[in-house]
Amino acid sequence: MPNSRKPRHRVKIGVFDSGVGGLTVLRALLDRIPDADYLYFGDTARLPYGSKSAATVAHYAVGAVRYLQEQGAELLVIACNTATALALDEIKAAAGVEVIGVVEPGAEAAAAASRKRKVVVIGTDATIRSHAYRRALEARKVAVREKACPLFVPLVEEGWVEHPVTEQVAKIYLSEAFSPEVHSDDMPDADVLLLGCTHYPLIKPLLRRVAPEPVAIVDSAESTALDVARQLQIESLSSSTRSERRGVPQLKFFATDSAEKFRIMGTRFLGLPVEDVVHVDLKE
Amino acid sequence: MPNSRKPRHRVKIGVFDSGVGGLTVLRALLDRIPDADYLYFGDTARLPYGSKSAATVAHYAVGAVRYLQEQGAELLVIACNTATALALDEIKAAAGVEVIGVVEPGAEAAAAASRKRKVVVIGTDATIRSHAYRRALEARKVAVREKACPLFVPLVEEGWVEHPVTEQVAKIYLSEAFSPEVHSDDMPDADVLLLGCTHYPLIKPLLRRVAPEPVAIVDSAESTALDVARQLQIESLSSSTRSERRGVPQLKFFATDSAEKFRIMGTRFLGLPVEDVVHVDLKE
Repeated sequence: MPNSRKPRHRVKIGVFDSGVGGLTVLRALLDRIPDADYLYFGDTARLPYGSKSAATVAHYAVGAVRYLQEQGAELLVIACNTATALALDEIKAAAGVEVIGVVEPGAEAAAAASRKRKVVVIGTDATIRSHAYRRALEARKVAVREKACPLFVPLVEEGWVEHPVTEQVAKIYLSEAFSPEVHSDDMPDADVLLLGCTHYPLIKPLLRRVAPEPVAIVDSAESTALDVARQLQIESLSSSTRSERRGVPQLKFFATDSAEKFRIMGTRFLGLPVEDVVHVDLKE
Repeated sequence: MPNSRKPRHRVKIGVFDSGVGGLTVLRALLDRIPDADYLYFGDTARLPYGSKSAATVAHYAVGAVRYLQEQGAELLVIACNTATALALDEIKAAAGVEVIGVVEPGAEAAAAASRKRKVVVIGTDATIRSHAYRRALEARKVAVREKACPLFVPLVEEGWVEHPVTEQVAKIYLSEAFSPEVHSDDMPDADVLLLGCTHYPLIKPLLRRVAPEPVAIVDSAESTALDVARQLQIESLSSSTRSERRGVPQLKFFATDSAEKFRIMGTRFLGLPVEDVVHVDLKE
């Protein structure tokens, strides 16, 4: 039913993250779905979510997605691994619209890419401890090795995306992740590296160089954007005519910490100028 | 008036930090003032404070020190650079007891150690941006170069305190901090490196190797402990008889995030077993 909506309706997609990392997901969305408008909410004053309880994360995330809906979001992307892992069900229950998290699309793409049915997933401490990717992959009959890489986020935030220190750290982490000795299982044969953190796409070229061959790198940001595109076609929100471009996407950003800081850091993550940033103060 | 208090009164010192870093200050306090008891509050669920507004930090810190006072703290040490930099006045106004922060003692010790009246101070992004050490040093007629070293905290938390990666990072940061080219001022002659972050004492031996000779390293944790000892003698709370040891210090810990996580990470920072940890839920 491609014409079930008003012909000139541009869908408004709300993207939520605890910080700027989710902008890599927004970037993938812009590439895949340019004929939509976007609202991005970064809960920068309350990050990181990784050290917080599931109840607190759910409370914060629900507040943020309600705010995005008040601003007109018709579909919500939870571009935050911790919020997806700990609170996706609560967010779905609170939201009146479709909600897509990053874990399921990432796991689905990794499962599809792995001929050997063996995947290494890397992420922050909090994401790895949640075992959300493990559960999602095992449900698809894929064996998993999980490896927390807590230094990647600060290295990316320092701007060292192509840097000898980051390369050295990546060599250490990935050699542990792919080493045959650590476990007695049959994991050394993993043929997919799943990036389970929204910061990691920025070091994808470096990880490509460091990861053993022939390992495919699957990126949750990219997989999530594909899933959203699929969802919009199913729901026919994108009103079919993907080729008929109707102006550039409108981007609006909300940050709970300094708008200026968000603008500066955000531009690096998005790879595009981050301009229209509004500071938002959410009640606790 | 050494005997103005009951002879067997052991002073209860409250130590506050946003996380486990302040345990290096507690460690220095235990070394200097073993005949006291200690209450340590780590606001681990709400860290890092660096990304939060001054008003929010003040609100959190005041809540935490009030809690410490309810538990019997008679003197408060703000072992958190951000809270000291952004909220010391508010904390002092809210507390009914003596409050000592980490910035003034650190600056005082650095000023005393610098014959050239030139100091390099390193810390987190938030501490450096607050310019609290700059103000405190300049008030003492000492020239300052500030250098944020955002990777040191995650490297220490990863446990890489003696690690080639940390050494490489330290070489990069310190060569920038001590380089003559960056500024046209006369700072290359700095003869003191001030550690303006409670995590940094753990990498002091490594920094000693990497820092140019002949640079003295001054540690805020150590200076703060000395200041507290001085304060207690002035106030005669330690009831004079430093030589008369009256049992081992009682240590009690409060954490707003998982007590178990605090126990594990805390033991590394304190260099002693962290046992009696109570989870505390502070209202926002």
